[in-house]
Amino acid sequence: MNEPVKLRDLHPGRAAEFTKTVTEQDVYAFAGITGDFNPVHVDEEYARTTRFKGRVAHGMLAAGMISTVLGTILPGRGTIYLGQELRFTAPVRFGDTLTVRVEVLDVREDKRIVTLRTVVANQEGTTVIDGKATVMAPLEFVPAPS
Amino acid sequence: MNEPVKLRDLHPGRAAEFTKTVTEQDVYAFAGITGDFNPVHVDEEYARTTRFKGRVAHGMLAAGMISTVLGTILPGRGTIYLGQELRFTAPVRFGDTLTVRVEVLDVREDKRIVTLRTVVANQEGTTVIDGKATVMAPLEFVPAPS
Amino acid sequence: MNEPVKLRDLHPGRAAEFTKTVTEQDVYAFAGITGDFNPVHVDEEYARTTRFKGRVAHGMLAAGMISTVLGTILPGRGTIYLGQELRFTAPVRFGDTLTVRVEVLDVREDKRIVTLRTVVANQEGTTVIDGKATVMAPLEFVPAPS
Amino acid sequence: MNEPVKLRDLHPGRAAEFTKTVTEQDVYAFAGITGDFNPVHVDEEYARTTRFKGRVAHGMLAAGMISTVLGTILPGRGTIYLGQELRFTAPVRFGDTLTVRVEVLDVREDKRIVTLRTVVANQEGTTVIDGKATVMAPLEFVPAPS
Repeated sequence: MNEPVKLRDLHPGRAAEFTKTVTEQDVYAFAGITGDFNPVHVDEEYARTTRFKGRVAHGMLAAGMISTVLGTILPGRGTIYLGQELRFTAPVRFGDTLTVRVEVLDVREDKRIVTLRTVVANQEGTTVIDGKATVMAPLEFVPAPS
Repeated sequence: MNEPVKLRDLHPGRAAEFTKTVTEQDVYAFAGITGDFNPVHVDEEYARTTRFKGRVAHGMLAAGMISTVLGTILPGRGTIYLGQELRFTAPVRFGDTLTVRVEVLDVREDKRIVTLRTVVANQEGTTVIDGKATVMAPLEFVPAPS
Repeated sequence: MNEPVKLRDLHPGRAAEFTKTVTEQDVYAFAGITGDFNPVHVDEEYARTTRFKGRVAHGMLAAGMISTVLGTILPGRGTIYLGQELRFTAPVRFGDTLTVRVEVLDVREDKRIVTLRTVVANQEGTTVIDGKATVMAPLEFVPAPS
Repeated sequence: MNEPVKLRDLHPGRAAEFTKTVTEQDVYAFAGITGDFNPVHVDEEYARTTRFKGRVAHGMLAAGMISTVLGTILPGRGTIYLGQELRFTAPVRFGDTLTVRVEVLDVREDKRIVTLRTVVANQEGTTVIDGKATVMAPLEFVPAPS
């Protein structure tokens, strides 16, 4: 686990990424956790009749990987997730390799409130989710003066 | 799978719910899918030192259950998920029983765009997520006039 | 969760369905739950030498989806599962899309006992399980007369 | 994997057993495979209001363990599962230790059809499923006369 990024280092433009190939197994396990057996995710025959031409992943599965970056890399451990806006702009197919990119937009140092742009894109560079996160950055432990 | 709710029946105030008790297994499987091994979710020793006093579920896991209602009950199969706003207002503990409530706020019939309030609450009635979804309601197949 | 179907609406012929594409992951998870590591399910080399020409799903996995319909759609929440007869008539291959169809055969209103025909078929329309379920329909809460 | 029992050794009264403690994780994984999110299995708050006083396992999960014995012990590998009758006689609670007992009732040697009584009982000896299986016993490879 990385050390969290210090508040004073959270300047606009600082970014971090996480990438994973999404599998059929991921989608089925996600359905099993959330109860979301929407046929577009688990019924290949139905899904072929839709605009997607086959089963697609849950949008919220891809969105879940945003929190991976926020909570373990930037700002990292100790971050409090306050809010998230999501726009689902393209489908995620089984086997797609998704990259979540998180970039600091704004920092309100007095309240440790940080806003970040959160973009999830597939292996072709197509944005599948665009959005914005609001977090409270981790508290820094200031060593006592000697 | 139930038939989707018809656009003309999607009047403001119409609501639907889904309830599930969230387990340690759910949280660990969600970590395995998303890669979010934030210690507040999977490191009990660390989590005890935080304000949460123990491991908590991923906020996005709870958020994932919103899509269960949108895509399988209201409006149901064929719904296109366009966007979601989320505010995380309280932690979800292992063993909490979450109820997702989705309620139609507004319908733009010409474009089939429906906005819905989406609230996730625990067994004590505490709201853990508040937010708003935007979806495109399923297309209705109108039979040709005879 | 939908409201259960009322006893008085459970007339013969009323039907409901649930469809899912069965994956290798489903079969392996089912083996892990039940301990059924019969090589026809998990040993590809052995399975190729059998009449099935490759691994097949557990019949009881497909049968488990019957209860999905009975307990969540028709009759729905509160249904008590009393009995099930199953005839396994064709193998289920990895990747098959199964549709469970449940249809009311008979209702004994005095005892709330409902019998239903339960058929599971694959994407080619081949019946893989035929059978009959016996359930006790959910109790209706009759409001007191005013 | 044991060798299958030879047809000539499948006399009435021959029996075999399999035992497993059923966990919350088993039940949640089974819901994830079958899509059966009946609240009596996954909603502790609802389940407490029912006659069961808490979440219970899917009946078909316990039934799935019958096939474990048939397909891997008695008669064993190569058995073809033809049919199963099930009567659900008591609930299965999380943490119950279930024993499946399978006992040969009848053998029609000419057609290799074997019927077996199949009983699943919990750690207190209470029968949770009673029923009968019909299988085709594995073909024996008879060595050619020398």
